[in-house]
Amino acid sequence: MNHVQAVVADIGGTNTRIGVVNDEQLQQSSIKHYSNIGFENFETLLGMYCQEQGINRCDTACIAVAAPVVDDNITLTNHNWCLTRRGLKDVTGAKNISFLNDFEALALSLDRVDPVNLMHLSKSSQHGVPEGTRLVVGAGTGFNSASVSINKNSADLIVGVGETGHMTLPVETIMEFELREYLARGRGRASIERALSGAGLVEIYTWLCERAGIQYHGLSAREISERAIVETDGIFRKTAEILLRFFGRCVGDLALAFLSTGGVYLSGGVTRALKPLLDSELFFKYFLAKGRQSSLLSGIPVYLIDDDAAALAGCTAKAVSLSR
Amino acid sequence: MNHVQAVVADIGGTNTRIGVVNDEQLQQSSIKHYSNIGFENFETLLGMYCQEQGINRCDTACIAVAAPVVDDNITLTNHNWCLTRRGLKDVTGAKNISFLNDFEALALSLDRVDPVNLMHLSKSSQHGVPEGTRLVVGAGTGFNSASVSINKNSADLIVGVGETGHMTLPVETIMEFELREYLARGRGRASIERALSGAGLVEIYTWLCERAGIQYHGLSAREISERAIVETDGIFRKTAEILLRFFGRCVGDLALAFLSTGGVYLSGGVTRALKPLLDSELFFKYFLAKGRQSSLLSGIPVYLIDDDAAALAGCTAKAVSLSR
Repeated sequence: MNHVQAVVADIGGTNTRIGVVNDEQLQQSSIKHYSNIGFENFETLLGMYCQEQGINRCDTACIAVAAPVVDDNITLTNHNWCLTRRGLKDVTGAKNISFLNDFEALALSLDRVDPVNLMHLSKSSQHGVPEGTRLVVGAGTGFNSASVSINKNSADLIVGVGETGHMTLPVETIMEFELREYLARGRGRASIERALSGAGLVEIYTWLCERAGIQYHGLSAREISERAIVETDGIFRKTAEILLRFFGRCVGDLALAFLSTGGVYLSGGVTRALKPLLDSELFFKYFLAKGRQSSLLSGIPVYLIDDDAAALAGCTAKAVSLSR
Repeated sequence: MNHVQAVVADIGGTNTRIGVVNDEQLQQSSIKHYSNIGFENFETLLGMYCQEQGINRCDTACIAVAAPVVDDNITLTNHNWCLTRRGLKDVTGAKNISFLNDFEALALSLDRVDPVNLMHLSKSSQHGVPEGTRLVVGAGTGFNSASVSINKNSADLIVGVGETGHMTLPVETIMEFELREYLARGRGRASIERALSGAGLVEIYTWLCERAGIQYHGLSAREISERAIVETDGIFRKTAEILLRFFGRCVGDLALAFLSTGGVYLSGGVTRALKPLLDSELFFKYFLAKGRQSSLLSGIPVYLIDDDAAALAGCTAKAVSLSR
């Protein structure tokens, strides 16, 4: 049995990734992916992983969760697991347990992700303002963002995690307004993540079918996005186009809110599933459509974080900083 | 003639305030207000002020402007003045000239404004999370915001100024959608500040009159807000109510974006002109209307910065930090 520097985990709404950190580096060969379904709780999964890897002790267990991090016990927003420091110490033998929000982890990963996994989507070759604020934005099980700025006095990274998925869904056409009404039914409002998420993709598809009087099928977000990519028109492509229009608009709005001249980094399962459509005109048309601020936005580079283990890299950064 | 520590100025789109800093404090008796109209350029106004105050030298001139601060020369966004370091040194005898954005100045003022000028608008008595992010949001000639967070390692204040007035105006009802169409005419889009500004108040009033077939008059934003306060119903009150609804919604959205658990601080000429209506149900109803995040928002205290010289207090903080 081994003593390792850290065990890191990224618990999403649907999947969990776990890895090992030694010598301040995430060990690529140690990274494993799991579907959350089938594990009654996270401790069982983590205990199984540690046993497989022959780990009985570590300095730190650093866990990214898709939930607000406020106290000792974490209840996941989009899943029914409840995590406790006590339980995690028991299965990992960790001296320290550190929780961080999944978007904080993504924000901390930007300087650690292999640059080949940062896909430059912007047409221009700009690299943004050095030391400018950077913004991570993602659509997956939910929607959220985090900003990263540099404190010039101390060189510390300052991460600000939001709850941007709960902001008002911004509509600009009558068709979008009607979709908003559909998404808001029974709730009185439609937040950004009502459209910009896996569930949102399914809802947009269902709404388009109902509107067109087409028989629809109980397809998953993955199936819809797979079909949207191979179609050149048709209902699946149209579904993805509506999502990308909202996505471009919301990402542009958030780039204005945070003045993220250092760059925008897209993440999330839904975003990555639509990767072949992201560098289409559509996303950028709406990202840039901000009147006299369009030139500001056109100077901001947009990347896709095309690395499913990015949040683990952020957990690694956190674990390393804690052990210094 | 005197040597003072700093001359501070806050140049808005409509008015300018100037003051003197000595012994690290803004000298209240030195504060003067001017209307920008009638001065060909800012240097003339500042030169006149320095002469009146008997100032021929200062360590620092610290100038807040309603414009992005990027380089040596500042062109004001909503006014035709152009400021240069050279010109400002000539009239003030300053060793250092420092420009800052007006919302950066407001953000830096929060710990210097006299607490009697911070009007607690929330119904509850909460004081927010200590060291939580604070957010300044204001509607005046334009709309903008700035966040202030504390770097726990160094105790530095980290200010993030946005361009939030240019974000998409969020509409949630068919009436608001129609207003959005009116505000977007000839432009293709409506930003937040198309509604949430002095010009926006006039546009909302004109739209309501046109819709109701009422003869309307060329009233200023000030006149409209004055009438809105004395009316209990009628077109002026309705105008203010529409603005406050958008304001509550946008401020709530921004509180989610920045997770400003330390408090929201409202500022700006339009906001202050509608002060008697701000603690009405209307603003808070829309501020809190964020589905399952309503409880998060209800824990955030909301204040009005009821101090026209607040930005000067922020300039003072900046000037003092520069002379240490």
